[in-house]
Amino acid sequence: MMDNFQSRISPEQIESIWRSANESGLLPSATKSVIVHDLERMRSRIAALISAFPAQTLHAIAIKANPVVEILRTAVDSGAGLEAASIEEVRLAVAAGCGAHRIVFDSPAKTESEIAECLELGVHLNVDNFAELARVDESLRSKSSASTIGIRVNPEVAAGAIAQTSVGSAGSKFGVSITSDRDKIVAAFERHPWLVGLHIHVGSQGCDLDLLCLAAKKIEALREHIQRATGRKISLIDIGGGLPAAYNDGDQPPTAQQYSDQLASEVPELMSDDTKLMTEFGRSLHAGCGVALSRVEYVRNESSSEPMAVIHLGADFLLRPVYRSNDWSHQFVLLDSQGRLKNGAKKPVTIAGPLCFAGDILARQVDLSQPEPGDWIAIRDCGAYTLSMWSRHCNRGIPAVVGYLGEQPMKVLRHEESADDVVRFWSH
Amino acid sequence: MMDNFQSRISPEQIESIWRSANESGLLPSATKSVIVHDLERMRSRIAALISAFPAQTLHAIAIKANPVVEILRTAVDSGAGLEAASIEEVRLAVAAGCGAHRIVFDSPAKTESEIAECLELGVHLNVDNFAELARVDESLRSKSSASTIGIRVNPEVAAGAIAQTSVGSAGSKFGVSITSDRDKIVAAFERHPWLVGLHIHVGSQGCDLDLLCLAAKKIEALREHIQRATGRKISLIDIGGGLPAAYNDGDQPPTAQQYSDQLASEVPELMSDDTKLMTEFGRSLHAGCGVALSRVEYVRNESSSEPMAVIHLGADFLLRPVYRSNDWSHQFVLLDSQGRLKNGAKKPVTIAGPLCFAGDILARQVDLSQPEPGDWIAIRDCGAYTLSMWSRHCNRGIPAVVGYLGEQPMKVLRHEESADDVVRFWSH
Ligand SMILES: Cc1ncc(COP(=O)(O)O)c(C=O)c1O
Ligand SMILES: Cc1ncc(COP(=O)(O)O)c(C=O)c1O
Repeated sequence: MMDNFQSRISPEQIESIWRSANESGLLPSATKSVIVHDLERMRSRIAALISAFPAQTLHAIAIKANPVVEILRTAVDSGAGLEAASIEEVRLAVAAGCGAHRIVFDSPAKTESEIAECLELGVHLNVDNFAELARVDESLRSKSSASTIGIRVNPEVAAGAIAQTSVGSAGSKFGVSITSDRDKIVAAFERHPWLVGLHIHVGSQGCDLDLLCLAAKKIEALREHIQRATGRKISLIDIGGGLPAAYNDGDQPPTAQQYSDQLASEVPELMSDDTKLMTEFGRSLHAGCGVALSRVEYVRNESSSEPMAVIHLGADFLLRPVYRSNDWSHQFVLLDSQGRLKNGAKKPVTIAGPLCFAGDILARQVDLSQPEPGDWIAIRDCGAYTLSMWSRHCNRGIPAVVGYLGEQPMKVLRHEESADDVVRFWSH
Repeated sequence: MMDNFQSRISPEQIESIWRSANESGLLPSATKSVIVHDLERMRSRIAALISAFPAQTLHAIAIKANPVVEILRTAVDSGAGLEAASIEEVRLAVAAGCGAHRIVFDSPAKTESEIAECLELGVHLNVDNFAELARVDESLRSKSSASTIGIRVNPEVAAGAIAQTSVGSAGSKFGVSITSDRDKIVAAFERHPWLVGLHIHVGSQGCDLDLLCLAAKKIEALREHIQRATGRKISLIDIGGGLPAAYNDGDQPPTAQQYSDQLASEVPELMSDDTKLMTEFGRSLHAGCGVALSRVEYVRNESSSEPMAVIHLGADFLLRPVYRSNDWSHQFVLLDSQGRLKNGAKKPVTIAGPLCFAGDILARQVDLSQPEPGDWIAIRDCGAYTLSMWSRHCNRGIPAVVGYLGEQPMKVLRHEESADDVVRFWSH
């Protein structure tokens, strides 16, 4: 039960993943690509999370990072809760067997009926703004609820390195302001006994522990201020989403243990027994557990010094690496048609997706051996925010998602979408 | 039967669209958003296309621009064919009632079994590269086919203003090169009597008529060269995708008639009776036929000089305007809760999507009246490459797609996705 938040599926492990997928009959000749999830690695990361944080902590994994129900189910069975960004994700959490009190519902656009449904279910609600707070109040007046309720506060720390996913700086679209809304926050806790928690979420990729801990310190200071001002005890603190993930050789993102150690030293109150802590890890849990395998269908300029491999996953799967290639990238591994690592002389290879869209280029100048049609390209560290953001552009069917638990045979977690499925998707 | 390629759904028309949607019972209080398609406008554009080009022209509409089967069916019933970017889109075309010989299959990553399926069906195939050509040859040796077959040529004209969707410049991932592959192209026509067509596609948004006509001239010159060199007559020319669309006040994109007039004057051979022309319009046909309506759920900083309206469509629907906001944008119209245009004093309004993702901002500083919760925001000109690129990020259900034909009552073209649908989507 090691804390392997830094570990990645290695090229050698990819070789053996290919082999077991093949032996399990998951790579018949019609298979263009397949997405593989290492469930054991995910389980051990959840175990590491649980052991790093105080025992009463609820680790609600962000469904938006990977919504495959069987993966969610394994997470729940491993002791995690689930964080939902939409009412649909709340239902996904229920479908995955997550107890309502272990589901956290965050959304900046909750409707009245979504709020009512969640209060009815008893899921934890993080209110995003004062207008939503008034709706919750209204709802609770007519009907009591088992839900616990927190409010999302924007800690207004600096943005991380990636502006689009950094939500904790001033002017973001989320939460109430820790500075300008301070008095209104206190008044809300004064008025609403059911308001019991504070929630922050800063971002992850591009954010370091100092930034995350600074936000935690600010929320702890706010908690103490509210406690002094209202005489109430506020025990529920949701510190939001997670850590950066490793995507490149040499990346050493912080582990759950390092995060918890730094929190314990900088904000000890947060880690004390009488705080009920919540976390919402997404990327750092899942990214390193996923690898996608695609056949190389064609090689353009095969004999040139800069060949282009055309594969079966593109901007439909790797939306951000295609549309925001400066912020997001993955590493690639080349296997031959028999699944063996290719170790010939390296060339700068362009990897193109299959979409009829000129921009559908996954990466340029990747140092790889000569690719040939029939080879396989593995995309590393794609367990988070890849499949979950699947775009229908060009309407290619979603590949099968398969998973493995240690030495057990691989099994299909989500079926491959057939052409008929896609036709049904757009029909009636 | 006017050529309305420049026309857009006006704010006043949006008002009446809202009213008929409401009267048709399509805006009950649980409805967060709805996508509306003006089928009559689409029909009249197809009619304009048909009348602008020589009678024998096949106008194969790009399914990737809008794959809703009922919309495809109306296009087919109006005299269009369909262009498919994937085998799934071929099936969508069949489902929409399109005759096989009126389906054009373009994809840069066709597998052997996809090629076999299309030859079996008899759809028109545009081969992307020489390796694919060899596969087609192989397949035709064992089994004859009713398919016509062309080859995609990169005309190597300059890129248009938007690099990601400009495919006709040198080094693109599509087609064989009109310069360096010239002899190989001739040899292919020499060797393969079944190779009967040439295909180009330059791009659309950001490309002007001069650029499109330059590409057409180059392909015509190539045709004449091949004819001289082989003694064969090459009669099938597919000039690919379409024209830019109007997205802003004052935009005056070329009409189908202007395109055809300029082709007739610059490349008369292409428009002559003994050429079988094909086109593959997408964006310019559909964009202006679509409008999306979303309720305003919350207004942040409501009383400030720069309020933010949180609506129910975000980067899931408007992927490119969010991820590539410099290249892509839409105009917005604000209606009150009763569907009336709001005409109060203007403010710079930020329009935020509903996703738990800081970058999910549809537009900043939009000149609108003061928004209030319960208002409606209409997104103009979103009939192409919006819904068709739907991303699952945060897993919100896809809104209902409704359509209207002139004065007929609105009808649902695609049902609203329920939470249960989304759960099924990610299950087993
Ligand atoms: C509110 C909230 N919590 C948790 C997460 C998960 O964060 P990460 O995947 O970066 O750990 C996100 C990501 O968007 C979020 O918006
Ligand atoms: C081969 C091909 N044909 C047609 C189209 C449609 O082009 P547009 O929508 O720009 O008219 C595209 C767009 O990607 C394409 O790739």
